[in-house]
This record gives sequence, structure tokens and C-alpha cells, in this order.
Amino acid sequence: MATSDRANRDLRVAVVGATGAVGEVLLNVLAERKFPVGSLLPLASERSAGSRIQFRGESIAVEEARPDAFEQVDVVFFAATGGLSKSLAPEAVRRGAVVIDKSSTWRMDPRVPLVVPEINPAALDKHEGIISCPNCTTIGAVMTLEPLRRAAGLEEVVITTLQAASGAGVAGTSELEAQEQALQKGEALKSDVFASPLARNAVPVCDAFREDGYTLEERKLTDETRKILGLPSLAVTATCVRVPVPVGHSASILVRTERPLLLDEARTALANFPGVELYDTEAPTAQDVVGRDEVLVGRLRRDLASEGLWLWEVSDNLRKGAATNAVQIAEALGERGLL
Amino acid sequence: MATSDRANRDLRVAVVGATGAVGEVLLNVLAERKFPVGSLLPLASERSAGSRIQFRGESIAVEEARPDAFEQVDVVFFAATGGLSKSLAPEAVRRGAVVIDKSSTWRMDPRVPLVVPEINPAALDKHEGIISCPNCTTIGAVMTLEPLRRAAGLEEVVITTLQAASGAGVAGTSELEAQEQALQKGEALKSDVFASPLARNAVPVCDAFREDGYTLEERKLTDETRKILGLPSLAVTATCVRVPVPVGHSASILVRTERPLLLDEARTALANFPGVELYDTEAPTAQDVVGRDEVLVGRLRRDLASEGLWLWEVSDNLRKGAATNAVQIAEALGERGLL
Repeated sequence: MATSDRANRDLRVAVVGATGAVGEVLLNVLAERKFPVGSLLPLASERSAGSRIQFRGESIAVEEARPDAFEQVDVVFFAATGGLSKSLAPEAVRRGAVVIDKSSTWRMDPRVPLVVPEINPAALDKHEGIISCPNCTTIGAVMTLEPLRRAAGLEEVVITTLQAASGAGVAGTSELEAQEQALQKGEALKSDVFASPLARNAVPVCDAFREDGYTLEERKLTDETRKILGLPSLAVTATCVRVPVPVGHSASILVRTERPLLLDEARTALANFPGVELYDTEAPTAQDVVGRDEVLVGRLRRDLASEGLWLWEVSDNLRKGAATNAVQIAEALGERGLL
Repeated sequence: MATSDRANRDLRVAVVGATGAVGEVLLNVLAERKFPVGSLLPLASERSAGSRIQFRGESIAVEEARPDAFEQVDVVFFAATGGLSKSLAPEAVRRGAVVIDKSSTWRMDPRVPLVVPEINPAALDKHEGIISCPNCTTIGAVMTLEPLRRAAGLEEVVITTLQAASGAGVAGTSELEAQEQALQKGEALKSDVFASPLARNAVPVCDAFREDGYTLEERKLTDETRKILGLPSLAVTATCVRVPVPVGHSASILVRTERPLLLDEARTALANFPGVELYDTEAPTAQDVVGRDEVLVGRLRRDLASEGLWLWEVSDNLRKGAATNAVQIAEALGERGLL
């Protein structure tokens, strides 16, 4: 079980989905941030087991993710499909590991903390073995909203996202690249991952449709934002759009605060918030944020319809939107004596 | 002068900017719609004069746009720079022509009708020689808003656009294509037209910045929407984003109506409005609308924050967003005995 005597020693760390888009970045982030990995156990579905990954200059064989693999493991990062998280996370917890899960499987479970460490680290204290990492889109949004919430409360939030192909994993990035190649050759485009051809297009469908006309991605953004901010009835609504960008999610956000907030107060709140880099009225783009851990916030101005604020936010969906946030959760667990 | 006896004869039509992105489409639309062109006079800036255009299978030399050129002309379409419209539109009117101007120069002039023929054709009756065609982004938006306004009034509109490169003319489309070619070759990207590299990116800057943090494009969308809908204090606010799409503007629109509006009532209003094609909860994309004159409206659903509606709208920015709307204005003038 998670006990504080583990805080001062190196940890046995497993990564499920080590060969995926997020898994690969996660291994880099663990090394970059000098997370105390004593030994690394890369795991994957049966299909990817047997391949090798690189970690801190070492080549390590990927093993099949099965319940037995989690014996003696301290921390498991799940960066694979929801199916693997659902079946295997409880097995890992049963064997004494702490699970940090990047899938959507456990996020809305009331027993599971959903954590962005800059915002709600105290939620970790009550964990029962599984901690969820929010959706990539949610993380950029709440990092932008939390400083404004602290300064003036939130009344209403309207979001339109412009999401990168890699949000759909390696398959998404590959499909975009294949479509671009096909366009250059004048060939027909194939779309398996995305609802419509993505190259030279904008497709307002991320993830599957629900009966009410929303996509799962849009509901995740609403539900997860409410849970992380601790505002279960916050008026927050979104349209999520896929754009032909390899990495870097953007979001156009209109925020109305409970109390009046001067532009200068908003500037101060955003500029002082850890993990946010304020571009003020300037326009950061997805390309500016690739490889970075900060959420870049720009286009700050008063909206023309009310006393609200417009903002434009970009984040690296594979780093702060996924891998970095997951590693930060592990770091926060360590700092709180929970590893 | 514009007199009704011209209604039954073929017209002498001039097109200023005949070699530009909109000008070229305008010539096609005039031919497709069998607009009664007796003779065509293609005009352009000094730089482009001397080149040739094709109209109804005929090759015609482009002449320099100078005041004298407008003698004996009935209708002039301006599809060039604002500078040419500003200096030459009054010269054309002085010589008895009716001007239909695609530039932003005259749009907010209280003496100048700003017209989308499906919405406010009666505004044409008071014209004093110049009629403005709205910005491409505005046309898609108001075509979506007007059916809802008629059904239940408008209280508030929040828009995020995703705009095609061709909205910045041939230079925009060429820059995007050159950047894509450079990416394939691993070369550095050059950006002259757009604020940041557009290929594989999303750039939340269309047109120049104002002092208040808005871009000109965003203010056009607010100001023109208010004027066309005849709602001078409508709460309508926008963020305008350029995306790496050659043709086809998209917009994510949140609408709150004055009176409650059931989803089925919204469906009926949109489906019955001329020039709108309803995709209901489905997701039309920019690629679906290229070459078409309808505004495609989809992703219809109730917003999760209030009693509002989310919609997603796409239009061909060169056709309904520019050339087709301009030709429809000319047709409406004819129908009203004003040509």
C-alpha cells in the first residue's frame, strides 16, 4: 500500500501503453524531471509486447500488461486504452500499487480524485489507489479558468476547442500525415480515425456522438471541469473541433465571472498562476507550445456582449495535457507522503 | 442613373479585381446564374491590367481600373482592395453606375445598404449608388442567425470562427500551399500574409489588431451583424481564427434567444430558410461546402449552460461569402426595378 516510508527511495514504476503517443512522451518526461525511477517496467497490450523502448539511454523490452506484472510495483501510469485501464487498474491497486490513469475510465467515479496538481492537489489525500488525469482538453481549460475563479468566481464559460490530431493517438497523427501525402499526390483521402478527412479541413467531431447531440469529448470537458474546480453546477458548455495540427490543442474561451474583474486583475491572476504563461493580447499558437509544459494564454480582452473576458489558450496535449500532468500527480503524491 | 427601364435589357457589367480570388469566382457565378451580362469589362489595378480573363468561353483583356472606365457601365462589382473601392466607387456612381462593393470600405456608412438578399433586400430600396456586400465571415453567421431571430428573437451570440486561407485572397492560399510544400521538404516556413505560420497550425489572428485587443475581422463580425439584422445593440462577440484550410469558413456559434425556442422549432426555422441547408445534429465541414452556395448548418443542440443553442455553420467564403452574395444583390436590384 501507499506508505510514506517509500518517499525517500527510488520507485518501481510501470507504464502501461509505453509504446503509444502519450506513453513515449511520458518516458521522456519521467527522465527530464528526474522522477525517482529505480526500475522501469514498460507494459503494453499483447499486440505491442516484445517491442523495445528507450529510457534514460537504456533499451528495455516491453512486456504484456497482465495482472501479475504489477507485483512489487509502486506506481503505474496507464497511458493506454480505456479497456486496459478498466480491467487492470484494480489489479494493480490490489497488489499495492498507486495507479495514475490517463484514460477516461475512472475520471467521474466519485471515489477517484481527478487532479491537476496546480489546482486541486489536496484531492489526492483521499485517494483509494486510482487517481485520474483529466482529458487533454480539460487540462488546458481549467489551467486558464482556475486563476480567474480564484480572483472573481466563475459564472459561465463558453468554449470552442481546436484540437490536434495526436489527441487521437499515433493513429490520428499518422492519418493526418497520410492524408497530406495523398493530397500532394492527388490521391483520394482515407478516413478511419476521424469523422471526415482532416487534412485541409476542420471537423467538429472529437470522439463519439451521444444521443443528445454532444460528443463524448464535449461532455468530458463540462463534467471534468466541474469536478476539478469543485463547482458541480458550473455553467460550462463546449464545442470540440479537430483541426489539421499534429500537436497542440487550442481553445477559444469566453468567461463570465461572478464578481467584476478588471483586465489588469485578470492579467495579474493569470501571470502569477504556476504553469500559465501569459501572452496578454498577443496570440500564442499550437506551434509555439509544442514541447513545452506551460499553458500559454493570450488574446485577453473584454467581450463585446457583456462584462466577460475572451481568452485563447494553447497547450501541448501530449505533455501538460497528458504525460507531464500525470508525472506531476506522481510528484505531488510523493510530496504529500503518499508514495 | 439606375432606372427601371434597364430591367429588361442586358447590362454592361464591370468587375474591378477580375483577376483576384473573389473576382475569378464572381465571373463564374455571373455565367452560372445567367445574369444578364450584355458586355463584360474586367478591370484591375495597374499591376494586373493587360492580363486576360475567361468569361462564358471568351477571352477578354483586363483594363486598368480608372474613373473613365466606368462611362456607360450599368453595374460595377468591386472585388479588389479597399483602396480601389474608396477612390473609384464614387467615380463609378458619378457616371451613373450602381456599385456592389465587396470591400469593407463602405459597409458601416449609414448611407450604404449592407445586404444579404435572403435577409434584408428592402434595404436596397434606399441605396444612393453604392451597396456593400458583408464580410465573408458575417454572411455565414447572419444566414444562421436570421431564421432564429425570426422564430424567437436574439438575446446573445458568441462566435468562434475557423477561417480559410483564401479569406486573405490568392496570396493567402499561395502562402498556405508554399508552407505545406516547405514542410514536406523539411524547409523553413515563410509567413508574410498570416501572423504566424498557418500550415499545421491554428492562428487566432484575422486581419490587423485594434488598440482594444480585437482584430478588425472580429469587429466587422459584430458591427456588420448588428447592421444587417437591424439590431444595433445586439450582444454579439467573436474570436476569429485562421486555420489551414484552402476554402470554406466554419463557425462555432452559441445563440441565446429572447423567447424560449424548442429544438424542433429551431430545426423548422433553419430548414425552411432559403439558402440554408440543415444538417441537424450532423457535422458539415469546410470541404463539404466548397463550390456550393448554401450555408450548411449542423451540430444543433441545446447548450449545457443555459437555454441557448449550439450550432456549427460552414460556407464557401468565395461563393456565398463573397461572389454569389454580390451577384444575388445585383439580381435583387433587378427584381426591385433598381437596375
